[in-house]
Formats: sequence, C-alpha cells, structure tokens
Amino acid sequence: MPEAKKSAGAVDPALIDDLVAASHILAHHGVLDAWGHVSMRHPKDPQRYLISCARAPALVKAEDIMELDLDSNPVAGDDRRMFLERFIHGEAFKARPDVYAVVHSHSPTVIPFSVTEEPLRAVSSVASFLACGCPVFEIREPGITKGLLVTTIKQGAALAKVLGDKPVALLRGHGNIVVAPDIPRVVHRALYTEVNARQLSTALSFRKPIKYIEPDEILDPQRLGDSWEVWKREASKGA
Amino acid sequence: MPEAKKSAGAVDPALIDDLVAASHILAHHGVLDAWGHVSMRHPKDPQRYLISCARAPALVKAEDIMELDLDSNPVAGDDRRMFLERFIHGEAFKARPDVYAVVHSHSPTVIPFSVTEEPLRAVSSVASFLACGCPVFEIREPGITKGLLVTTIKQGAALAKVLGDKPVALLRGHGNIVVAPDIPRVVHRALYTEVNARQLSTALSFRKPIKYIEPDEILDPQRLGDSWEVWKREASKGA
Amino acid sequence: MPEAKKSAGAVDPALIDDLVAASHILAHHGVLDAWGHVSMRHPKDPQRYLISCARAPALVKAEDIMELDLDSNPVAGDDRRMFLERFIHGEAFKARPDVYAVVHSHSPTVIPFSVTEEPLRAVSSVASFLACGCPVFEIREPGITKGLLVTTIKQGAALAKVLGDKPVALLRGHGNIVVAPDIPRVVHRALYTEVNARQLSTALSFRKPIKYIEPDEILDPQRLGDSWEVWKREASKGA
Amino acid sequence: MPEAKKSAGAVDPALIDDLVAASHILAHHGVLDAWGHVSMRHPKDPQRYLISCARAPALVKAEDIMELDLDSNPVAGDDRRMFLERFIHGEAFKARPDVYAVVHSHSPTVIPFSVTEEPLRAVSSVASFLACGCPVFEIREPGITKGLLVTTIKQGAALAKVLGDKPVALLRGHGNIVVAPDIPRVVHRALYTEVNARQLSTALSFRKPIKYIEPDEILDPQRLGDSWEVWKREASKGA
Repeated sequence: MPEAKKSAGAVDPALIDDLVAASHILAHHGVLDAWGHVSMRHPKDPQRYLISCARAPALVKAEDIMELDLDSNPVAGDDRRMFLERFIHGEAFKARPDVYAVVHSHSPTVIPFSVTEEPLRAVSSVASFLACGCPVFEIREPGITKGLLVTTIKQGAALAKVLGDKPVALLRGHGNIVVAPDIPRVVHRALYTEVNARQLSTALSFRKPIKYIEPDEILDPQRLGDSWEVWKREASKGA
Repeated sequence: MPEAKKSAGAVDPALIDDLVAASHILAHHGVLDAWGHVSMRHPKDPQRYLISCARAPALVKAEDIMELDLDSNPVAGDDRRMFLERFIHGEAFKARPDVYAVVHSHSPTVIPFSVTEEPLRAVSSVASFLACGCPVFEIREPGITKGLLVTTIKQGAALAKVLGDKPVALLRGHGNIVVAPDIPRVVHRALYTEVNARQLSTALSFRKPIKYIEPDEILDPQRLGDSWEVWKREASKGA
Repeated sequence: MPEAKKSAGAVDPALIDDLVAASHILAHHGVLDAWGHVSMRHPKDPQRYLISCARAPALVKAEDIMELDLDSNPVAGDDRRMFLERFIHGEAFKARPDVYAVVHSHSPTVIPFSVTEEPLRAVSSVASFLACGCPVFEIREPGITKGLLVTTIKQGAALAKVLGDKPVALLRGHGNIVVAPDIPRVVHRALYTEVNARQLSTALSFRKPIKYIEPDEILDPQRLGDSWEVWKREASKGA
Repeated sequence: MPEAKKSAGAVDPALIDDLVAASHILAHHGVLDAWGHVSMRHPKDPQRYLISCARAPALVKAEDIMELDLDSNPVAGDDRRMFLERFIHGEAFKARPDVYAVVHSHSPTVIPFSVTEEPLRAVSSVASFLACGCPVFEIREPGITKGLLVTTIKQGAALAKVLGDKPVALLRGHGNIVVAPDIPRVVHRALYTEVNARQLSTALSFRKPIKYIEPDEILDPQRLGDSWEVWKREASKGA
C-alpha cells in the first residue's frame, strides 16, 4: 500500500457537474444500471482521475466525486467506499494518454455480442466510431480471473491491452468499456454503442448480407452541438 | 381446516416497508403485472410468512400485509381475501429453510423459455445466479392439475420439489418463482432473470455458439450497495 | 337511411367512466394508437351500443360517448362525427348476444401474425383465452373491399362471421377485434393479446417446438380483482 | 456565395407552432434523436422553406425557426448556425413541388433495412403509404461522398433523385427522408415508418411468406382527425 497522496487541486465545478450529468444521462437511457460508473481525467494532473464513490449512477451527486491516482488509490484522508472495479478506469487512463473520459457499463444489448462470435460492428452513422472494430475481453484468458469482475491493476491492465487504440471493448458476459477525449463524447459513444447493438441485432435477424459502416466513413464530431444539452435536460427531468 | 393461530408478533415497520417496496419496484420494471406477489419469512417465527392480501402489486400498502402459516392459512381473525396462489410461497418456505423471500411473477420474457426446450441460462454477470440452472415446472406432470394455477399445498409442494436448491424455476406457460435470503436479493434476482432472458433471446437469434456464465463464475453479493436505494427511489417516483 | 330513433335512456355514469377508462388504459399501454375504439352494449337495450364520437382514445371524455343502434346509426339529434369503422362494433353486437364490450385496435405486435400464416396462439396463462384459436379476417375475400377499412354493415358482418364464437380475430394488415362479456375483461383480453404476441414472437425465434396453452387450460376469470383498479390508476397518472 | 435575399414575409404563428410541435412529437416517440430535423415550405413563397437553426429537436422553439431559400442559404442578416444536412430539405423542396413538409431522421428501426437487401415494405394499413416502395440511397454511388452526411446541394439532389415520387427513402447506414403535403402528414409518415419497420422485422422473423399491403390498398387520409391533437398533447406533457 503506497503512501496516500495529496490532491492535485480543485476542479471547475462545471466539469464536475458534467461528470455527474453523464451518470444521470446514461442511467436515464438504460445504458447504466445500478452498478456502472463514469470517470474523467483530472484537468490539472494527468496522473489522477475523478470518479464517484461507490454509488448507483442515478444517485451520484457532485459531493460524491473522489480523486484517485492511476493505481486507483484515493488521495490522503478520503476513506469513502470505492467501486471494486475502478481499476477499469485507472488502467485505461494509464494506457491511453489520449483518453479523458471512461465509462464502464452493463449496456444490455451489448451483452449478446460479448458471449458469441458475432462482432459488434457499426451499421449507423451515429455509431460510426465502432467501424474500427470492437474487441472482446475474455477475463479467463489472462489467467487472472476469480469470477468476472475486474478488481485488480493486473486485470484492468489486461483489459486496457485488449482495448488497444479502440473507443469501445466488450467484457465477455459482463458489459463494456468506452473511452473518449471528453465527457460528452464518452456519453455519446456509450449511448450509441447500445443503440447500434439493437439495430445490428435486428439487421442480423434478416439473414442477408450487411453493409457495415467502413472505417473511411467514420465521423468524429469535435463538438456535439446541443445534443449534450438535450441529454442533460431529459435526464434531469427523468431524475 | 386447522384451528386458526395467533400472530407470531409485530414486525419491524422498516422490513414491512421493504416488502411493500419490493412489489412496487418489480411492478415499476414490468416484472410483476397486476397479479404477481412478493413474500418474506416472519423474522420472529420461521413457520410464518408475510404477504399482501389479494392486491395488485403496484397498489400494495403496509396495511395490506398479512401473516400466514406455512400451510398458507391466515392468523386468527384475519378474513381478508388472499392470493389463490399463495401456496407457491408457503411451500417454498417449508422446503427451503435457507429462503427468506419469495417472488412469483409473470415475468414477460421468461415465458418463451418456459414453453420451449431452450434453457434459460446466464449470459450476464449480473444474472450469474442462473448459472446453476433454471428448471421448468410442468403442472400437468404431477397429475394434480386443473388449469395452470398453483392453488393447493400439493401443487405448491410439487413446484418446490422442482425448484430444488436453485434460486429460480419457471412455471410452464405461466411465469416463475424466485427465492433468496432477503428482500433486496429476491428483487435483484427477479429483475435480472427478466433482463437476462431478453439478452439471451437476442444472443440466440445470432445462431452462433454461446459462452454461458459458468457455475464457478457466480457472483453472490452479500449486500447490494445502494442498488436497493436506487430501485426504491425510481419506483416511488414512478408510483 | 332509416328514421333516427330515440335514446334507450340514461346510463349509469360509473359505466360510462369505465368505458372512457378503457380507452385511456389501452392507449397508455400502446395497444390503441390514435385511431382505435372501445364500445359497450347499452345496459337498458341490447339493440343499442355506446361508443365515443370520432376521437383519439387518449382524449375521450364522458361527454364524447354516443348511443348507436346495431346498424351503427346515431340516435335522433346527434350529428357528431362518428368513427368510419364503427360497423366493426355494431355487427359484433348483432352476431354475438353474449358480447357486451368490443375493442378494435392496431395492436402493434398483432400485425405480424395477421400478415403471415403463423397462428397467434396462447403461450401465457394470462392470455389463455387465445387457446381456442384466433382467426384472421382477409377483407379481400368477401369481394367487398375498397382498401383495408371496415366501413359498411356488409364488411362488419363478414368480419363478425370470421370471428365466430372466439374472443379475438385479427384483421390482415390492419389490427384486431376483441370481444368480452364486460369492459374490464375486454381490456384484459386486448392487453394480453398484445403481450402474448410479443412472447410468442420471442418463443418462435428459438426455432424449437412450442408447448401452447391447451383449450382445457383456459382460465376465464369472472372478476379481475383489482387489476382493473391498477390499470385505471396507471392510465390516469400517465394521462 | 449568392447575395443574401430578403424574407418572403411573416408566417402564421399557428403554422410555426405546428412545425415546432412536429419536432417535439417525433423526439417524444424516439423517431428523432438529438440530430434530426423537420422543415416546411414557406406558405407565401414556394422558393423558400422554414427550418430550425442547428438545435436538438426536443429543444426547438418558435424563435429558432429560420427562413432559407431552396439552395439552403439563409435570408439576409440571419447568421445563426444551421444544420449541416439542411440540403436534404432544400433539394427535396426543389425536386418535389407537391411536397410541403420534410423530415430527416435516424429512425432507429429503419437503419437495419437500410444496410441489407431486405426491402422496407408496408405490412400495416396505418403505414400503407409505404406500399409504393421505399428506395435506399447509397451515398457512395454518386461519387460525391465524403463520409455519410448529405452536406451539399449535389448530395441533396442525388438523394432527391433516389426518392423520386415516393413518400419515404432510406439513407444507407444513416436514416431516412420523409415527405408529405403538410406537417401532420409528414409526422404521421415518419412515425409509422418506424412502427411498420418494427412490425415487419417481427413478421420476417417468422420465416414464412408475408402478405404485404398492396398499392391498391393505400389509404391517404386527407385529414388526420384529432391524431394530430393527441400527438401534440402527449409530446407537450413529455416535454
């Protein structure tokens, strides 16, 4: 157990509000159930990240946000109960300097793709980020499993290795990890991974060849316009 | 008709509130329709259980809770109309000393698995309790049927025998019985049996081999964290 | 055009409220879209029936209820716009003296069964009324078609003939007719015809033999307990 | 860049309200996500059309409505941010003098039909407008693609050519365009294209021949009765 560290400093409350809203939005849309989580890299120190204490996403409040180092240890003096699977986030931030936001979810329609050899590929322009492929993490393979949860640095690092440079990876029989350069985009990707999974399931049921979105058709919006605003508004009304 | 018995004594109102909330939560999520029921063993006497009088789950209030013995007779002086199928609960409590909470539902996506030879198996870690198997009760087999309802001790006991030591059994063309060591866990199991049934239906539609959750991957949470709180909050807002 | 008749007399406002509630409940559950209708036989005169003037089900109020004879003509002095397809109701009441309530809907999951040879059969005890079979009306066959709507006595009578003594018949590419001895039961049947259609669709997707509910397993509840109350409460809160 | 033009004049606020309501209704029903749009031809000048500035449909207000010429340029002095894909609308108005209202959506269940050879055909009378066929636009074919978006006059014109004289065309891996003689009808068509896509997906899963709605069975309502009122009411309550 390393010595606990001091905080990297205060964070703009608007950013914290966005982090909290992300949990509410994804819970509102059924992407997060009572156990998923959203995190963001600390804006003042890339070796830290921010995530709620153990709390159902729909209930998260600004005061629940904790600061962790990339080994997923809390800063000094914070002894709140933490998510067992926070290592999913810490190891993704470690392995991917380009990533500023991470979601781990039990996204319901993603599960069927995680337990079969049917790849989750993009059929919708709004989910074109999936066109570069969506790997599946098999926790038994690294020889590190005890059950299906990712609860250690070693397991989190193995997952991050499977994720590679992709925006989404599935966890077999468990859910997914979604990463992005900011909070609105990680919400967009988590939401449309689910929507695209539903659409692909239907398309597959027709038993005809599918024209997937090709990598050269990927749209990567630099900003989400007021999609972010409408998602926040819907979630706050449903909350 | 045996002589009616006296009550085993007052129950902590917080436990009654949880029992009432369980009905509201499962109705809110569409697992219970207008006819299902939730029960709990009496905390002061394992030979008694608590269940609503005949009342649609969404409408149950604390004052509707009745005390029954394990033959499903009410205590002396309580002549309210009871659920015809309360024997599902009484016989499960009789056969399973480890069980403290029971749900009987018409969980919609469970029905398709009950009328085909396709087994309902676990594909999601959150429903890993299904990895030990989910038997189907055929009410015609025991030679005790008159229609599809379980309305006698004999029928309830035949169902409990099929359930064996499992957490869930399906009733052919009818629904399921779900058992657990406490109210939050029986709600968790009833809810995720439905979610897993939807996910497995989709996975099966891909027509490829499925990697089911294995028995050694079962997660049995001793506590549900604040999942229970978020389910209660959602249900009370939707109620 | 026959001479318009006088009213058969005032109707208990509680019955009218139930007729109005039936529209709201079925709209709330998505069984009725903006075009379906619910009717009841006049309690004082079996040669009359009560139905809303042309009005989307979710908007129907007590003052919208009109009295029609069984040829679907209004009583004297009532010149409100009527449903084009009211003949579905009038001819069902004519052909079926046992029927006191009729629903015509575009019940969404019923349509797929109406356009294929796959029969809509009962897989759930709560929809066991479908175990005696569910015929499909092909409006082209009677040589009376101009489009898909049932807008004449002749078309309505042809539909009633296909319905025969059953509780439900499908209209090819259009929807269904549901009949029952009273308003709560016609709502129950319309609602669970939809639910059963969804469940059967899923069961069929498994591509394994299906154990349908057998005719000797039909449950015909004489009363619906407080299911009716909970449906009314849900609809009034959603309204 | 042509010289900016003056406005064709003020528009009846009730029409603007209908245009705004159309966005809210289709967002409420999940046909429009955070990126779709609805437009109408200017009632005083067929060479102009009205559409929101870049704004998520659920958030559109009357003051967001802009006036554009058919090349999709704004009138003089209006420098608000516009939808990148507004050319879908402008070119449809140019090519189709009979069209007074246009929707572009990512209608979720339409996507599977856009990426396979399975044609989206009518199975429900309420969507009989699809009986005349529903072409699919492949943006790669015209040799004008850079990604999947329709962001130029040339691309919009190519789409309008594929649409031809039909009410609906699909955009491969993207969504659809829906056109109609007025706002209520374009909403009706957009909504029931989605509903019919769901129903057809289910019917196809039965793997039996399908009786599609034939062109001589098309119902083209001149007015939508109070369907329009009920859709507006539902959307305003959900909003």
